[in-house]
Amino acid sequence: VMGYSLKGIHMYKVYGDMLSGNCYKIKLLLEHLNIAHEWVHVDILKKETHSDAFKKMNPNTRIPVLDLGDGRYLWESNAILNFLAQGTDLIPSDHFLYANVLQWQFFEQYSHEPYIATARYINKYLGLPKEREAEYHAKQTGGHLALKVMNDHLSKCDYFVANHYSIADISLFAYTQVAHEGGFDLSTYPYILSWIERIKRMPNFIKMEP
Amino acid sequence: VMGYSLKGIHMYKVYGDMLSGNCYKIKLLLEHLNIAHEWVHVDILKKETHSDAFKKMNPNTRIPVLDLGDGRYLWESNAILNFLAQGTDLIPSDHFLYANVLQWQFFEQYSHEPYIATARYINKYLGLPKEREAEYHAKQTGGHLALKVMNDHLSKCDYFVANHYSIADISLFAYTQVAHEGGFDLSTYPYILSWIERIKRMPNFIKMEP
Repeated sequence: VMGYSLKGIHMYKVYGDMLSGNCYKIKLLLEHLNIAHEWVHVDILKKETHSDAFKKMNPNTRIPVLDLGDGRYLWESNAILNFLAQGTDLIPSDHFLYANVLQWQFFEQYSHEPYIATARYINKYLGLPKEREAEYHAKQTGGHLALKVMNDHLSKCDYFVANHYSIADISLFAYTQVAHEGGFDLSTYPYILSWIERIKRMPNFIKMEP
Repeated sequence: VMGYSLKGIHMYKVYGDMLSGNCYKIKLLLEHLNIAHEWVHVDILKKETHSDAFKKMNPNTRIPVLDLGDGRYLWESNAILNFLAQGTDLIPSDHFLYANVLQWQFFEQYSHEPYIATARYINKYLGLPKEREAEYHAKQTGGHLALKVMNDHLSKCDYFVANHYSIADISLFAYTQVAHEGGFDLSTYPYILSWIERIKRMPNFIKMEP
């Protein structure tokens, strides 16, 4: 990835953590689309998102944040994906199909991430402390419900919307591929496993690594 | 509201509950845009979203669902808003501003609804049963964090994006205006209160009533 973005005069800067699925989504997309950017690592355990400087970028104190380089900022991972992918074939031009992309992205943030990502966070980031064990176990039911919805859907198609790779797949891929780190065994979801393999073969695919 | 929708030959059907903020959002938009539709009441306490017929419309067993009348269905309240409002001035034509609308909608589903709507559900729908009291109280912190982010933002503008009424306002209005039913006192958020009054004066505004 070289040179400046085609989307504007300024180079994009992303504030994030490559091991956070919400941030990794942005990296996957930027690499796939060959968009030049600078990655600024943010340590959430050190509460770096709670500094006054960070709150000016995102008052909701979360990563990722996209810095457009001209004084504008955008937060919420899926909103950033929608912004960066506009005009590409990762977003369908048909209005109903586009609404389907959004449908799966809202599903991801409401019915998937709060279970699968949170269980992984408690386990991987915090080391499954005793006081959060009950919460960790409670997350399993909701996570499996989401995985079942995904697996059933993928039994009928290769990608989530219009059988074509889109930002809906990127959103759902990020935490699903590391669901085992939150205690979710994917071996009973064969269609999810094949879909994961398909995405790993996409051009410029990048692993979730620091 | 008379006649058929301009969006297609078929009349829209909405499966929902007017007292659910996620469903009420759709009603607010349909009335504002004068889009003909049929409203089909669904009782979540009777588990009507878990029937086989319902799962064919939304495998994630939630309301609202938009039935396009031609065999297609759309779920996730904010995806439905995006679909119905496309081409209207409730969605900005500028790509960055549109991404801002999505940003606030994802904020609503991740940082607002799980606290404010869930506390209200436990209190209003379930009657605050003893076994969910701890959860109800735990929801207060997150809800106030979201309300503070909203109030700070609204201290600088009349509406969430580009100082213009959009589907971001509709998304956030639905549960905020009934936040008191979840134990949230809005009197310390003056900018939210003025914004609520502005939205109530919008053309074709409809109250959240059965």
